[in-house]
Amino acid sequence: MQKSSKEQLRSILEPRSVAVIGASSKSGKIGHEILKNIVEGGYAGPIYPVNPHEEFILALKSFKSIMDVPDDVDACIITVPPHLVAQVLDECGKKKVGGAVIISAGFSEIGNFDLERLIVEIASKNELRIVGPNCAGIINTQNKLYATMESRIGPGSIAFMTQSGALGGAALAWARQERIGISKFISYGNRCDIDEADILEYLVEDDQTKVIAAYIEGLRNGRRFLDSARDASKKKPVVAIKSGASSEGSRAALSHTGSLSGSDRVYDGAFLQTGIIRAEEIDDLFDMSKALSCQPASRGKRIAVLTNSGGPSVMMTDALVKLNLEVPEPSTQMKDALTFLPEICSRKNPIDLTAEATPEQYGKVLETIAGSNEYDIAISMFVPPAFVKSEETGRAVAEVASDMSKPIVACWMSGDLVTEAVQILEGRHVPNFPTPRRTAKAVWALVERGTYLSKSRSDLS
Amino acid sequence: MQKSSKEQLRSILEPRSVAVIGASSKSGKIGHEILKNIVEGGYAGPIYPVNPHEEFILALKSFKSIMDVPDDVDACIITVPPHLVAQVLDECGKKKVGGAVIISAGFSEIGNFDLERLIVEIASKNELRIVGPNCAGIINTQNKLYATMESRIGPGSIAFMTQSGALGGAALAWARQERIGISKFISYGNRCDIDEADILEYLVEDDQTKVIAAYIEGLRNGRRFLDSARDASKKKPVVAIKSGASSEGSRAALSHTGSLSGSDRVYDGAFLQTGIIRAEEIDDLFDMSKALSCQPASRGKRIAVLTNSGGPSVMMTDALVKLNLEVPEPSTQMKDALTFLPEICSRKNPIDLTAEATPEQYGKVLETIAGSNEYDIAISMFVPPAFVKSEETGRAVAEVASDMSKPIVACWMSGDLVTEAVQILEGRHVPNFPTPRRTAKAVWALVERGTYLSKSRSDLS
Repeated sequence: MQKSSKEQLRSILEPRSVAVIGASSKSGKIGHEILKNIVEGGYAGPIYPVNPHEEFILALKSFKSIMDVPDDVDACIITVPPHLVAQVLDECGKKKVGGAVIISAGFSEIGNFDLERLIVEIASKNELRIVGPNCAGIINTQNKLYATMESRIGPGSIAFMTQSGALGGAALAWARQERIGISKFISYGNRCDIDEADILEYLVEDDQTKVIAAYIEGLRNGRRFLDSARDASKKKPVVAIKSGASSEGSRAALSHTGSLSGSDRVYDGAFLQTGIIRAEEIDDLFDMSKALSCQPASRGKRIAVLTNSGGPSVMMTDALVKLNLEVPEPSTQMKDALTFLPEICSRKNPIDLTAEATPEQYGKVLETIAGSNEYDIAISMFVPPAFVKSEETGRAVAEVASDMSKPIVACWMSGDLVTEAVQILEGRHVPNFPTPRRTAKAVWALVERGTYLSKSRSDLS
Repeated sequence: MQKSSKEQLRSILEPRSVAVIGASSKSGKIGHEILKNIVEGGYAGPIYPVNPHEEFILALKSFKSIMDVPDDVDACIITVPPHLVAQVLDECGKKKVGGAVIISAGFSEIGNFDLERLIVEIASKNELRIVGPNCAGIINTQNKLYATMESRIGPGSIAFMTQSGALGGAALAWARQERIGISKFISYGNRCDIDEADILEYLVEDDQTKVIAAYIEGLRNGRRFLDSARDASKKKPVVAIKSGASSEGSRAALSHTGSLSGSDRVYDGAFLQTGIIRAEEIDDLFDMSKALSCQPASRGKRIAVLTNSGGPSVMMTDALVKLNLEVPEPSTQMKDALTFLPEICSRKNPIDLTAEATPEQYGKVLETIAGSNEYDIAISMFVPPAFVKSEETGRAVAEVASDMSKPIVACWMSGDLVTEAVQILEGRHVPNFPTPRRTAKAVWALVERGTYLSKSRSDLS
């Protein structure tokens, strides 16, 4: 009986063994770089290079054909030229491999629809499922499988699925530089077989994945995708870029993937209905995913801003209000609860502790916000003069944050002056963002998620 | 006769000697950190610490009072407690110093209007002009004067003036991390004397400054500022954040600086009239300034996008169109001129050279764009797979760019995979931005600048 797409994706992403068909000992060749990434990445299972012309590649015994591999093979990574893919797939079928990832390009994306149809037929006849073709491969950081030519990013709880391999690669490099980790990476390219909906269904059941981030240009089967997204959103946040928003961008997407990207408004409506949180840019996508992966959804949109400097908090207020979030003043009662603060501090919102802010003040004000029913989210901002150590304040914020039942995020803006403090914060699950706009967008995602969850709860009751 | 504010600012920023009043040998004190920054920054003129209780500070002879310094003093950096500032200013007046920067806080920003009025009176009586109080100091990278407690950023051609010292510090740290340099930094705080207009008038005549970037919360003298900005814009681009845009942000600004920030729409209109290019965020501010500092203004808004990967170029198209820029298809004639490209490439716009792009193709396509009258700006995008060296393509782009009479910017997105290529590009004045949105915003600034210049030329004729 044919395995479900979920089982097949499990074979591909959690394989007991991996083969690279088209492996090469020649540096710069895709079949070399992917094999090297798998070996150097630390994947612990058996690795089988397949290449009829080589005996050993990267000190591993190479096989003339997948048929010659003496053991069972779960994941097959295919990097041979496009005209050889059909034959390779046929052999994979006979070998009864678990699933195939076709990196090779040269199919529907350049008009070779017949060739793509052919490989789908062969795969189907052999009860084999395919990721790709024309993709950048897959990553599972849990078993250290880096079956891709892209950056070896570290582990985290965000799964990233992308239609564009190049965008995926650029995004991974960007995320790695921002010290963001991932659980899974699935570049699905032309998705001639396994598609967006299959991947969503797999990721929603993946224990390592807390948030699903997606880059989408166009959908193969919109209806099925939306059904899967609706189910997924109930369990985990789904954040997605849908590019090709402008008609010009849509034309560009058409010439790029051959797929019509659809009216932008239609997507907006569909995303809203299914609970997908829409991102506009790579930074958005990962910032929102980061916030959602380590902070609870928000019960409302009343934001408290705690700062040690006026200017940045003015910008934060602007950025929040622009996203329809609220920055209300505290009640008289709450202001009274803040009378322990020195005269110089502002007890309005933003609550400004001034340059003389102490770690204790940060901690106590956050406790007051945590205990009040006036605010739904706290933002901790901090700008140190060049010679002030910010670690202690970071620790004070992290301490309160770990007991807080409402979301807290940080906007510590000063680049390498706060690197260590940010590590302390993020080590305790307080996500940090380097600018007010990016922070506000992450906060907005927590509010959107909360709104969706409370709406779907009330729909159920 | 009283010196003009421009002459006084010259005394402060290009001094023949500097005194730090309130200098201290105690690490962590502002008077210590600023002195240390001046010494370690490499300022070559005489440096005079002033502190009645110390004999030597950082191996420099210390003086009991500014009156005891045997030589003339140009710039006086004042870091004493607020209640001592009036007396210090009186002594500075008697000493006939060139100008004063008052770092000390505790004036109008916390309601001490009387104390601020007093220091203005004393300064005026002594024909002395003041930057500050409540500011983060000044930097001139040309003479290596870092009279501030903020990051020692490297030289460049962007001048950065900021009302908020903390925002200024955070922005400098951010800019340094992005490898952006500056010409001057002027944190003007409560601007009780020298104000935004004075600073603009100084910077517009500063040879090191090609672009003026400003962070503004509210203006002291709006009319005069706008007149100065109008004059400045004719000679150099002025890019500004005006924060407190929302009514909540405006309330936050009021409680922070005590100044009313004014209606946002009024600012929008005024900025448009005077040619100020409005930024929303720190990244915007520096991205736009960077583009304007090294590329010519654009003659129009028709953008050519050159890429080696579809996905990122679809996002770029979306981002450009969102800012009302155009991404038109090439004419048949121009498509014909691109027939040297392999079949697999897309000769529409974005022009997609695919993953097999060569440096030569990048160069030749850019030459075609440069020579056509169909496009006003070229964007070069590039996403390397992890193992591809991008330096050669960087060199090819930089080569054509140096002969181009229209603007070119780069969007090489892959973080540390393209660090060296980006250095090659930026070394040849092709500014790079890490995401499509940020690139599009920088391109928009070049178009805005061009629109303003052609409008003001036609107003003249």
